[in-house]
Amino acid sequence: MIDLCTLGTGGTIPMPDRALSSLYVRVKGRSLLIDCGEGTQVGVQRLGWGMQCIDGILLTHFHADHCSGLPGMLLALTKAQRQETLHIYGPAGLTRVVEGLRVIAPQLSFPVALHELEGGEAFECIGLQVTAFPLQHGMPCLGYRLHLPHPAAFEPEKARALGIPVQHWKTLQKGTPVTLEGVTYLPEQVLGAPRRGLTVLYATDTRPVEAIPEHGFRCDMMFLEGMYGPEEKLPLAIKNHHMLFREAAALARDADAARLVLTHYSTSIEEPEEFLPLAQAIFPDTACAQDGMTWTLHYDRD
Amino acid sequence: MIDLCTLGTGGTIPMPDRALSSLYVRVKGRSLLIDCGEGTQVGVQRLGWGMQCIDGILLTHFHADHCSGLPGMLLALTKAQRQETLHIYGPAGLTRVVEGLRVIAPQLSFPVALHELEGGEAFECIGLQVTAFPLQHGMPCLGYRLHLPHPAAFEPEKARALGIPVQHWKTLQKGTPVTLEGVTYLPEQVLGAPRRGLTVLYATDTRPVEAIPEHGFRCDMMFLEGMYGPEEKLPLAIKNHHMLFREAAALARDADAARLVLTHYSTSIEEPEEFLPLAQAIFPDTACAQDGMTWTLHYDRD
Repeated sequence: MIDLCTLGTGGTIPMPDRALSSLYVRVKGRSLLIDCGEGTQVGVQRLGWGMQCIDGILLTHFHADHCSGLPGMLLALTKAQRQETLHIYGPAGLTRVVEGLRVIAPQLSFPVALHELEGGEAFECIGLQVTAFPLQHGMPCLGYRLHLPHPAAFEPEKARALGIPVQHWKTLQKGTPVTLEGVTYLPEQVLGAPRRGLTVLYATDTRPVEAIPEHGFRCDMMFLEGMYGPEEKLPLAIKNHHMLFREAAALARDADAARLVLTHYSTSIEEPEEFLPLAQAIFPDTACAQDGMTWTLHYDRD
Repeated sequence: MIDLCTLGTGGTIPMPDRALSSLYVRVKGRSLLIDCGEGTQVGVQRLGWGMQCIDGILLTHFHADHCSGLPGMLLALTKAQRQETLHIYGPAGLTRVVEGLRVIAPQLSFPVALHELEGGEAFECIGLQVTAFPLQHGMPCLGYRLHLPHPAAFEPEKARALGIPVQHWKTLQKGTPVTLEGVTYLPEQVLGAPRRGLTVLYATDTRPVEAIPEHGFRCDMMFLEGMYGPEEKLPLAIKNHHMLFREAAALARDADAARLVLTHYSTSIEEPEEFLPLAQAIFPDTACAQDGMTWTLHYDRD
């Protein structure tokens, strides 16, 4: 199960009812943020899913609207007396940017581990298998694929048939072989068929790139930018390295995604729903995110 | 006339309905901010008095809650295509802090002039005579006195009696002497008695210091911190270099101020009005600021 919340859905400049874009992701009580613009810590408070449990911050890039909330967040975590290491991921320049911003947050109650990525790396965060991949935004910018594996089910009848005592079942269930009286039992002998996990793709601040449908292939949820709606904004989208609603929808269609959520709206978009039909004409399962909107993704019932 | 708005009234950590403390000050269509924490630019938008007209930002000190909104504000001004120089004032370390924060706001549409102050300096900003003075916060921290002079009234009957032609009245009215046929007329010959201007004092993040009632002597409005309410918080106030409501009230009383407004509340204060009687017992004309509250100060009608 993955819980998701678009804490903010604005691009460039925050608005009174639209904070800068940030996604809160929760798995089994631990959380990560994708981006941390101004207003993120208030969004976290308002959501009420916890601040102390945030173990990772994945930054897409270093435009201020995506990381200006970082020093405030670090101080809020210090105020909450966090002790555990906080992991911050981001593209080339991460160290310089975090050091710059920490001029106003020099003393923290916890260690910060910085992970500078090129795109292509895979790592683990809050139990999610994260893959970073490069986007096209006129500066280093990353998209993130989050994958939650679904372990195969333990089948007691198989274990019983093999004569494995009950006290060894948990070990096998967790994927570790067990040797009893010279015989080694492998987990796959007592587990069912592999099960589909859950996959979320997040990519904002980019022109359409092949890597998005590739990494988002058959994902359960795709978060893409809805920077501009109407067709006449295309030259601006190209100039500013952004996308139209319909371009995002085409990527979700190409990925065969289960559903698409648009976020990161230009301040020129007053009511995102106005342009939603432009996306739905290409990919029907498209929705427009609003600040504080939440989703829960469940494993298939198989 | 001076217009004032407490954009945010929170200390340390922003809350959903309490942004970090920032004061918006407007005089004749130009504005300055005192402090610029996270959320300030949204407060400016919500207020609707203008962002482009902000010519100066006066920082009290460099705890993140007072300056974390700066990079976002610089970008918002750039987005609005500001051309004029923005003046930023603050205590020792200003250059280092602004350079650090500008790691995410490197390219601006306007020049930034940095003014590093020790306390004791007087300068002009948006027509206000500003005096900076040191506070006691365990790090360099400044209070600000803002004074709007009230020019003496021009008295036409005096000018007429001296036989000064009407076309020279404006020059004298503006304070410049006029020489006609070898005779020099001084402004004071045609002006009325000096008039009382308007004075606002702003001091947060400090233990009580003598400089506050000195600089705020008979001021029209005093903004002081209401960090802690109840008496049992005194040891914490001393440790964290802050004040109780009653300590702020005593400073306003000592200054013989016209009125006191409390702001910059600890997150431990849910409802500031609960502790207001503690201040009013010492200084009756005390009010608790809320986010977005506005005041207009008028010259005496004399």
